[in-house]
Amino acid sequence: MIKKKKGLVIVNTGNGKGKSTAAFGTILRAWGRGMRVCAIQFIKSEKGKWGEVKAAQKLGIEWISTGDGFTWKSKNLDETTALARHGWEIAQEKIASDEYDLIVLDEFTYPLHFGWLDVSEVVAWLKEKKPLMQHLIITGRNAPQELIDFADLVTEMKEIKHPYKDQEISAQPGIEF
Amino acid sequence: MIKKKKGLVIVNTGNGKGKSTAAFGTILRAWGRGMRVCAIQFIKSEKGKWGEVKAAQKLGIEWISTGDGFTWKSKNLDETTALARHGWEIAQEKIASDEYDLIVLDEFTYPLHFGWLDVSEVVAWLKEKKPLMQHLIITGRNAPQELIDFADLVTEMKEIKHPYKDQEISAQPGIEF
Repeated sequence: MIKKKKGLVIVNTGNGKGKSTAAFGTILRAWGRGMRVCAIQFIKSEKGKWGEVKAAQKLGIEWISTGDGFTWKSKNLDETTALARHGWEIAQEKIASDEYDLIVLDEFTYPLHFGWLDVSEVVAWLKEKKPLMQHLIITGRNAPQELIDFADLVTEMKEIKHPYKDQEISAQPGIEF
Repeated sequence: MIKKKKGLVIVNTGNGKGKSTAAFGTILRAWGRGMRVCAIQFIKSEKGKWGEVKAAQKLGIEWISTGDGFTWKSKNLDETTALARHGWEIAQEKIASDEYDLIVLDEFTYPLHFGWLDVSEVVAWLKEKKPLMQHLIITGRNAPQELIDFADLVTEMKEIKHPYKDQEISAQPGIEF
């Protein structure tokens, strides 16, 4: 079997922890090797993602938050859709520029899952425009089947035990956000 | 419900990708917040973990490889056991020192799973000696049930699709190691 080298499309999905942190760990690994990396966040978490944003600033890693001021709980669907489209335009620009070895689209499954972006259009665009050697990591719950079919590597992070539901423990800064 | 704050014992297990990279992502997040972090690797991967070791060096993060020169495929069981015990002694020293906010024991499930270390003894020691506010992340396949019972947060990284088995694609530096 002749193995080929190509940029991987990686999806981290599931209801458990570690989808985004595994992407950030891969950013760290790639950055350690001097690769050009970029992270684009699609959903502004209610708790923020201060730890990783601060780390990225310290490391000089490009970190773009496209969802400032909106969450997927927004009641204004037009606004939500417009913001998701705006975020996807930024991602398209970064991907097509071919200036990065690794791009992370953090929480990108949500605009696809909720239909703010058309998953068929997104996959078709990636098939045509993503540079061959560029790695792309997409995180978030409920990855659509069409995205899974397109991806090279898919991992489900499955919750086995969770301290905030099962026990009386608070979320911890630096660990959980 | 009154929620308490405590250091979490986190286990990333399962046959999928992301167990170690999620731990490294959490290190990055914690480091971004100025927390004191330390990683201890128990198994020297055949491909090495150059990306993360290089990143840790650049960041000034303490990164200890206890398994240099041995792998869990070693045929010399006495030597393997001695090396696992040596690694655990280093980990015990770091944990008990209370000089870290977050310690990662990477691939630590293997010495437990293969019986080179006694899981009951390890859990009993952690119950007694781990500083209350210190976070501990343990990664690796086949996490023993006793460790899962002890942990606060357990995630199974489950392989849904893998490029090296299903497709003709090589492992990629910076992404996979």
